[in-house]
Amino acid sequence: MKHILIASTSTLHGGNYLDYLLDNLKTHFKNIDQIIFIPYARPSGITHDQYTNKVKAAFNSINKEIIGLHTFSNPKEALENAQGIFVGGGNTFVLTKALYKFDLIKTIQEKVKNGTPYLGTSAGSNICGLTIGTTNDMPIVYPPSFKALSFVPFNINPHYLDPIVDSKHMGETRETRIKEFHKFNTQPVIGLREGSWLEVNGENICLKGNLQARIFEHNQEPYEVDPNTYLNELK
Amino acid sequence: MKHILIASTSTLHGGNYLDYLLDNLKTHFKNIDQIIFIPYARPSGITHDQYTNKVKAAFNSINKEIIGLHTFSNPKEALENAQGIFVGGGNTFVLTKALYKFDLIKTIQEKVKNGTPYLGTSAGSNICGLTIGTTNDMPIVYPPSFKALSFVPFNINPHYLDPIVDSKHMGETRETRIKEFHKFNTQPVIGLREGSWLEVNGENICLKGNLQARIFEHNQEPYEVDPNTYLNELK
Repeated sequence: MKHILIASTSTLHGGNYLDYLLDNLKTHFKNIDQIIFIPYARPSGITHDQYTNKVKAAFNSINKEIIGLHTFSNPKEALENAQGIFVGGGNTFVLTKALYKFDLIKTIQEKVKNGTPYLGTSAGSNICGLTIGTTNDMPIVYPPSFKALSFVPFNINPHYLDPIVDSKHMGETRETRIKEFHKFNTQPVIGLREGSWLEVNGENICLKGNLQARIFEHNQEPYEVDPNTYLNELK
Repeated sequence: MKHILIASTSTLHGGNYLDYLLDNLKTHFKNIDQIIFIPYARPSGITHDQYTNKVKAAFNSINKEIIGLHTFSNPKEALENAQGIFVGGGNTFVLTKALYKFDLIKTIQEKVKNGTPYLGTSAGSNICGLTIGTTNDMPIVYPPSFKALSFVPFNINPHYLDPIVDSKHMGETRETRIKEFHKFNTQPVIGLREGSWLEVNGENICLKGNLQARIFEHNQEPYEVDPNTYLNELK
């Protein structure tokens, strides 16, 4: 049975790394001691070691051991043996390219299908959808495909941002961008605001956190859903 | 000799389509009557016809005829015979995919090298750089490559946006994104604010408009350049 936590962001404004999620992570990873951390997305280009150390510090407070996937000579084998998996945020293109390079997509899919708990934040959440086609990130490297882990039958837009009132900037709003996505793709997109996450348990997909999420379905007006809504029918 | 105008945006806040540029476009296209418009980027997903009609209206006021490239059965041949070329904004991935699909990259490069005046706005400017790796757009389709027209030996970031003071959003600022780009790429990036454009005449590249532009060079602190600065050495 799948156990997946898909968070819009790792960090809330004014908060520390992962702190708003720690209570839930205790439950999410309750049966395991050790989590493999995938640092490939490299936020701000920090090294795999720097990133892993930051994650270690946060998980130390809930007594979970973190090991960076980059420290294994055979990352595929390391993931096959993982008790739990955390994919952190950063750049979704860099992350996706690395997952393909090391041939890890199917490995992660199999593990998660078989019950290994998975946590994703930001870019690590983006890849939980069907494709990375609704990332906000800059395409700083060219991955061999935009196809992603497909844990859920729709796309994720993390860090969902409402239009900024009185903005004079002429770049597209997030809503406009997702509507453009739907001119070329038909799967739903969920705009997850910072502080929201999805909990996937088996076939159940539930919106968590205190905020509404914005749902974009093909050829429909976008709409809001409340926390604790189940999204099992969204596809 | 190359004659290229690379504009950050087609439209200023509160203005009409292209109006802030029209005087310059009169000069830019002074020797020709007819311009082929490439509508492939489809802003907000509008049709090629809708987009072309909008462009026709703007160019009508300076007595230039606009023909949409989509109206030709052989777009490659149409471009080979073009007097002038305008590539409009929208989604850079959609635009790039279409240019590769119809095998137009080399055709446009050859034409422009031989003196056909080119105008790009937004996505149409993005593709003037070495790659589309510094676009702000959502990757809603998968192009066969991120390599672009390479009219200038650096990358363009149109709609350049300074960090928003007091923002509580945790998504990356534009500057952070471009710095991440430089963890994986070495070419300079020019952040063109809305209202700025580059004029390329032969080997001369000059910043135009009333605003400074922000230059990001690999392993250097970003810096500002003033209007009318020549960027011939930037590579």
